[in-house]
Amino acid sequence: MKLLRVGTAGAERPALLDAEGVLRDLSALVPDVDGGLLADEAALGRIREAAEAGDLPELDATGLRIGPPLARIGKIVCIGLNYHDHARETGAEPPAEPVIFFKAADTVVGPHDTVLVPRGSAKTDWEVELAVVIGRTARYVESREDALTHVAGYAVSHDVSEREFQLERGGTWDKGKNCETFNPLGPWLVTPDEVPDPQKLGLRLWVNGELKQDGTTAEQIFSVGEVVRYVSHFMTLYPGDVINTGTPAGVALGEPDPKPFLKAGDVVELEIDGLGRQRQEFAQA
Amino acid sequence: MKLLRVGTAGAERPALLDAEGVLRDLSALVPDVDGGLLADEAALGRIREAAEAGDLPELDATGLRIGPPLARIGKIVCIGLNYHDHARETGAEPPAEPVIFFKAADTVVGPHDTVLVPRGSAKTDWEVELAVVIGRTARYVESREDALTHVAGYAVSHDVSEREFQLERGGTWDKGKNCETFNPLGPWLVTPDEVPDPQKLGLRLWVNGELKQDGTTAEQIFSVGEVVRYVSHFMTLYPGDVINTGTPAGVALGEPDPKPFLKAGDVVELEIDGLGRQRQEFAQA
Repeated sequence: MKLLRVGTAGAERPALLDAEGVLRDLSALVPDVDGGLLADEAALGRIREAAEAGDLPELDATGLRIGPPLARIGKIVCIGLNYHDHARETGAEPPAEPVIFFKAADTVVGPHDTVLVPRGSAKTDWEVELAVVIGRTARYVESREDALTHVAGYAVSHDVSEREFQLERGGTWDKGKNCETFNPLGPWLVTPDEVPDPQKLGLRLWVNGELKQDGTTAEQIFSVGEVVRYVSHFMTLYPGDVINTGTPAGVALGEPDPKPFLKAGDVVELEIDGLGRQRQEFAQA
Repeated sequence: MKLLRVGTAGAERPALLDAEGVLRDLSALVPDVDGGLLADEAALGRIREAAEAGDLPELDATGLRIGPPLARIGKIVCIGLNYHDHARETGAEPPAEPVIFFKAADTVVGPHDTVLVPRGSAKTDWEVELAVVIGRTARYVESREDALTHVAGYAVSHDVSEREFQLERGGTWDKGKNCETFNPLGPWLVTPDEVPDPQKLGLRLWVNGELKQDGTTAEQIFSVGEVVRYVSHFMTLYPGDVINTGTPAGVALGEPDPKPFLKAGDVVELEIDGLGRQRQEFAQA
């Protein structure tokens, strides 16, 4: 299933994109798409049955904003340098174990919302990422296989990053990862039955129409299952938590000087196989 | 005012500790203590009036658990190495600008709840900290004075830390700061009118009765006002966000080998002038 949330920011309603690409209203069935729903197999079953029976009312998509596909996100755990090709381009050694940093849930916006270049920023950069959404509490999980059973879905995530704040201003990467609007998410949350192998997904990102990132999750140093397993030994993952699993090569930071960092007016588009497409216009904060 | 939340975990009700130290029920006046309440001056005014008029019903404190004093915490921004004496003991240079890392809101527990030593941990450490709670959205704030007007209150915070996870396992400090139960908070949220100068607060922490930390916020490298101002240029702070402003000298990491890291059965007590006292027993996860 493809679950999403549509409507004005803060007042989104739950919806489903059906197999024919028609938008269906879920608000009579469930209050929202959040960790509570993802942990509730019966409710998910009712959605699936209603969709298959053709019982869901159609929604007029005309002019409808798509919000982030998940409400009340708990935490966003991010994995750094998790692609062989991206580690190479940044001059970093491939990490011996996953690098963890955080984004705050309040950085999340819809997939087509405006992204703000922070005041004082000269190095705003892009990163297309596969987001993993947790549906079942994961705590000291032992195997990669078991870890995958804790995943409720996948989505496109844009881990927007300010490289000077991240790398040159002291302290941890978090300083350059948490500016407002820095995590467009969506358009959809796609359930695992539609993603048979999360290690075989192509990811692409364009800036002003030019292809910048063209990678595959096959290049991930730590697989989705390994990431969920590993993280669960350092912190408990709850339904509604998100993991951004890292970005492939092709970010501005990896280009020769002068690096083409983002500025107001730039347009970034990104997509992952089967998970949909985002488009953001950048503006000045 | 001293605001708090009492009752079983997940079902706390809002309460007030009055000037005579009597616990008063707020649940007829407000649904909870959260960012929504802290941003609502009228509601805070109603609590203050009712307290002064003696209109609040008394709560029987016998056997009542105290929860964290804030529900629905947004993000927890932490400032690292923010005390001259703590920077010295860890062998670090005093930072040129604030070091930022994150704790997830799901690490927060009540001030007397059990704290779990993570599986595989040999270096669980303590840190008493002054927590600042945001009451008004702070975004690109210009002065320290203005920054302080965004603060809704202060509380005791225990920034429990796993030093091997934090410093020896690759990546950022977040890996050692986000284990479950790693942020006891409270007992109370104290409004700024009762904290005339946040830079003149003594902080103390005992392990099994032995005084380990005995510091003062006068030793902070970056003051509360400067921290709020600075952070607001890298991320937007919302009502219900928390900032842990760093710890003074005296952590296990700063002691000679063998360092006395925490293990199951240890008891940690901590307090800050005017903000109350915590006591946690440690257990194995």
